[in-house]
Amino acid sequence: MNIAVLGLGNMGLPIARHLVAAGHRVGVYNRSPGRADVLGTQVHRATSPREAGAAADVVVTMLADDQAVEDVVFATHSGLLPGMTPGAIHVSMSTISIAMARRLVDAHRRAGHEYVSAPVFGRPEVAESAQLFVVAAGRQAVLAKCRPLFDAIAQGVVTVGDDPPTANVVKLAGNFAIAAMLETLGETFALVRRAGVPPQLFLEIVNGALFKSPLYQNYGTLVAEQRFEPPGFRLKLGFKDVRLALQAGESFTVPLPLASLLRDHFLEAIAHGDGDRDWAALAEVSARNAGLETSDVHA
Amino acid sequence: MNIAVLGLGNMGLPIARHLVAAGHRVGVYNRSPGRADVLGTQVHRATSPREAGAAADVVVTMLADDQAVEDVVFATHSGLLPGMTPGAIHVSMSTISIAMARRLVDAHRRAGHEYVSAPVFGRPEVAESAQLFVVAAGRQAVLAKCRPLFDAIAQGVVTVGDDPPTANVVKLAGNFAIAAMLETLGETFALVRRAGVPPQLFLEIVNGALFKSPLYQNYGTLVAEQRFEPPGFRLKLGFKDVRLALQAGESFTVPLPLASLLRDHFLEAIAHGDGDRDWAALAEVSARNAGLETSDVHA
Amino acid sequence: MNIAVLGLGNMGLPIARHLVAAGHRVGVYNRSPGRADVLGTQVHRATSPREAGAAADVVVTMLADDQAVEDVVFATHSGLLPGMTPGAIHVSMSTISIAMARRLVDAHRRAGHEYVSAPVFGRPEVAESAQLFVVAAGRQAVLAKCRPLFDAIAQGVVTVGDDPPTANVVKLAGNFAIAAMLETLGETFALVRRAGVPPQLFLEIVNGALFKSPLYQNYGTLVAEQRFEPPGFRLKLGFKDVRLALQAGESFTVPLPLASLLRDHFLEAIAHGDGDRDWAALAEVSARNAGLETSDVHA
Amino acid sequence: MNIAVLGLGNMGLPIARHLVAAGHRVGVYNRSPGRADVLGTQVHRATSPREAGAAADVVVTMLADDQAVEDVVFATHSGLLPGMTPGAIHVSMSTISIAMARRLVDAHRRAGHEYVSAPVFGRPEVAESAQLFVVAAGRQAVLAKCRPLFDAIAQGVVTVGDDPPTANVVKLAGNFAIAAMLETLGETFALVRRAGVPPQLFLEIVNGALFKSPLYQNYGTLVAEQRFEPPGFRLKLGFKDVRLALQAGESFTVPLPLASLLRDHFLEAIAHGDGDRDWAALAEVSARNAGLETSDVHA
Repeated sequence: MNIAVLGLGNMGLPIARHLVAAGHRVGVYNRSPGRADVLGTQVHRATSPREAGAAADVVVTMLADDQAVEDVVFATHSGLLPGMTPGAIHVSMSTISIAMARRLVDAHRRAGHEYVSAPVFGRPEVAESAQLFVVAAGRQAVLAKCRPLFDAIAQGVVTVGDDPPTANVVKLAGNFAIAAMLETLGETFALVRRAGVPPQLFLEIVNGALFKSPLYQNYGTLVAEQRFEPPGFRLKLGFKDVRLALQAGESFTVPLPLASLLRDHFLEAIAHGDGDRDWAALAEVSARNAGLETSDVHA
Repeated sequence: MNIAVLGLGNMGLPIARHLVAAGHRVGVYNRSPGRADVLGTQVHRATSPREAGAAADVVVTMLADDQAVEDVVFATHSGLLPGMTPGAIHVSMSTISIAMARRLVDAHRRAGHEYVSAPVFGRPEVAESAQLFVVAAGRQAVLAKCRPLFDAIAQGVVTVGDDPPTANVVKLAGNFAIAAMLETLGETFALVRRAGVPPQLFLEIVNGALFKSPLYQNYGTLVAEQRFEPPGFRLKLGFKDVRLALQAGESFTVPLPLASLLRDHFLEAIAHGDGDRDWAALAEVSARNAGLETSDVHA
Repeated sequence: MNIAVLGLGNMGLPIARHLVAAGHRVGVYNRSPGRADVLGTQVHRATSPREAGAAADVVVTMLADDQAVEDVVFATHSGLLPGMTPGAIHVSMSTISIAMARRLVDAHRRAGHEYVSAPVFGRPEVAESAQLFVVAAGRQAVLAKCRPLFDAIAQGVVTVGDDPPTANVVKLAGNFAIAAMLETLGETFALVRRAGVPPQLFLEIVNGALFKSPLYQNYGTLVAEQRFEPPGFRLKLGFKDVRLALQAGESFTVPLPLASLLRDHFLEAIAHGDGDRDWAALAEVSARNAGLETSDVHA
Repeated sequence: MNIAVLGLGNMGLPIARHLVAAGHRVGVYNRSPGRADVLGTQVHRATSPREAGAAADVVVTMLADDQAVEDVVFATHSGLLPGMTPGAIHVSMSTISIAMARRLVDAHRRAGHEYVSAPVFGRPEVAESAQLFVVAAGRQAVLAKCRPLFDAIAQGVVTVGDDPPTANVVKLAGNFAIAAMLETLGETFALVRRAGVPPQLFLEIVNGALFKSPLYQNYGTLVAEQRFEPPGFRLKLGFKDVRLALQAGESFTVPLPLASLLRDHFLEAIAHGDGDRDWAALAEVSARNAGLETSDVHA
């Protein structure tokens, strides 16, 4: 297939590489063009989303947020939308709002394109090893065409319906669940630390006896060791995702008081300078509010 | 050893049986004496905590709450405290308040007894298969003496310090973490259900891609299938434990806003008649508040 | 002055009438043109915001939300923006987001217009009696020119700075404070009702002994009597305002956990069909969650 | 009447004085006996609650908390309970838990005494000027006998039923409402401060246009000026009262999420050293969490 990858961040870059390795012809676009250097001559480097999209059967976007999608897809002259061929497929892998996903659905329908939402679970190192987990929604026939693409980057693909924004809801709900775990770690660790129990020991007990979850183990260790740099996923992006989950809740009339608590604690973390640390630093809020010593941002 | 087991509920009964099987001489006491019938002639049935305690080197209490401990341990005439031999060991396995644990420490010290807190993780079926997880705190020498007893009922024992209430804090923090998971399941399921995604499918994704936790899987399935009867652990006991976690937070000056949210949702569940269902029914609160159909208490 | 009033809802209509009465030449625009009928021949009825704006020295907008401002001000052909005369003043009285206020500032600056934010406190009957309370921000010289206009509709005008969005923050914070009072009424009434105390009696005590506030009295009476129809201010608009307060909090990095609680309860109220009742119905959420009888939406 | 006043704190002392002034024969007891010095020879100074109670037709207790009531009323030898004459009346004015009020009801019934709960609203200076507000519950005939006593210290008396703990619920709900106002002030002030609006100006607007409440004005001024010393009512006592309101909610199955939020913020304030400042310092929590400068505890 002719595939275009728009967005070569920590996630988009390994995705592009795996697609090349799988034998596809790949064109790329990134706002900062230097990001494509490591891909060498294997890929065509487009100078605009429009140019990248014009040559592709399938366009993958992996962008930071709604605003980046706005800039890349909807820009009047250089954007992807005016450049795509009728019948081509846009696979949106970014973590975006339900409203933006809905807008993408509508814009592509009007333009005669196909559109699927296919956000992924997995941190950059998981993308590097082609072990992502894809949650996809869109027309069945279109998803079938995308299958080779997904297989090149993921260990698992789950389809959640034919209305694309559904996949975005699932992605946001999943990130919300991880953030809830971070808050749980933060509060329980603050409590046991005050009682004289080292958080590492508590983690050993709670994960050994109860959760038996590698995710709990990994994040629990980061929190117990107050190791938040370098960030695997920036706290301010976690804040963005919880806000999007709350917005999704609003559009479906679902109160989410735990997400609201997370929102406020993310904001509190940002107000104390932790926005660019790993989002596991959310747990520091509970420590600080209990009068416990927190790690220094500048350490 | 001569061991007395006070409290033959869903947890105490299998514990007594395993201690018998391990070759200890076991005496038992239960408020409703019929509970001891299944233990047959292998155990001595005492008619009061005092009588049970008088013959024992180690007394295990596994009681429902602070009030039951008050009744069994501190009753002026028939209680355990006046009956125990100096130097004997009281192993408190109940999930009780930090204040009660502290009071037990003090009372036994004054009386010349040894005291350890050794609450356990594991539901009744785990107790049946002697696979509990013991969290113990107390004097090292005393804990060493209790080791054979713990080994007879548990797959793992972790010591968290020499001040007994520390173990109770860990137990409360652990149950708080499970309840936090239930709330997370409740809110995320409500959101994805409104978006048209079956909760079972969401669970498959979120646990398959992220948590990979059998606990998540088990409770997630209960919630997805709205299967809350018969209760493995009653919701009103979950409420009790979260209240005790909040009280522990107060005694250590640790704000626990997530535990506060759980407290209010437990209370809301009780106000809607779910107090005697499995505590996984906590998740129904989020469904109800989103205007989703909930399971019928009388179903 | 030549004044245009865009938006003739429950607030805009009496404002237009008072401006006519004060001797100004007034043009009006409303999406549903019939709303202007009661103003008779005293006003010029424009067929577009652009036309209304073209003839005015001062343009007052009193619109429902950001979307309405988008439609009325920024519409490419018929909007206010392309129609205004350089140097004319746009006085925005709508309760809008900080982001929209900021966008209005920028757009008018680029076009060579003056812009002030001047949201008002007061329900429709207060607007009818010209007793509003104006909170204004903008250039001092421009505010001075608007003074006669404000005096025609308000009992008080307070200036809060020269950056217009500041006034919008104050308006949102004020509405947030009222909603917080509604939540307080809801929770305390639920508690005392369960204890057998009529809410009217509790209100008499708490307002008589403590608050001595007519606002507490008025809303407390609505809640105590469960009288939510007809709505003075619709609950779904209260929800909108709390969301805007939360967004303002995000833009200034201020966690607002009480506003988050209000958000979730507003959403819960909407999920139970109360979106079009008076926002005092927020208090019903606390009653329902306590298992108390609530008023029937269709009563 | 022969009246005994037990507890001569900031509230009990002026109450005793007013009762003397009203012509009653007054005996007093205070743990630290020196407190009675200022009352001179007008009062009889008892050396124990038992002695004070033995001579009285009516015993007024005005104590700090449940523990003080435990000590003063229930002490085996020196306590009030064994000393009171059958038929005498115990008027409990302390802010205590529903559970303690219930226990007082039961203990006095068994002993053949009368018991009423009559907590008061008003800070010490209000007690000094005999302008308290009494909320009373108990048998009508008994309350009628207490009327002259209430009239000597209060500007208003409201009866809320014949079950004494009802009055305690009302008192706790009232204090909860004040604390909710403090939280509202804290969050709105943090928001407007970040937007560049002086809190004094915001208070002028929000209380001038909306609440028109002297209580809002007084507390708002304390918060705006960050004036928390000397304390009129200590923050740790406010924490106690919110906890008691939450406990009352538990006993009546009423979730109180706003009270839970207050609980956590009170605890956060205590963890940061504000327990002995005026409870208006609750508002500092919101400022700190927004990264704003807070007042120094040692200023």
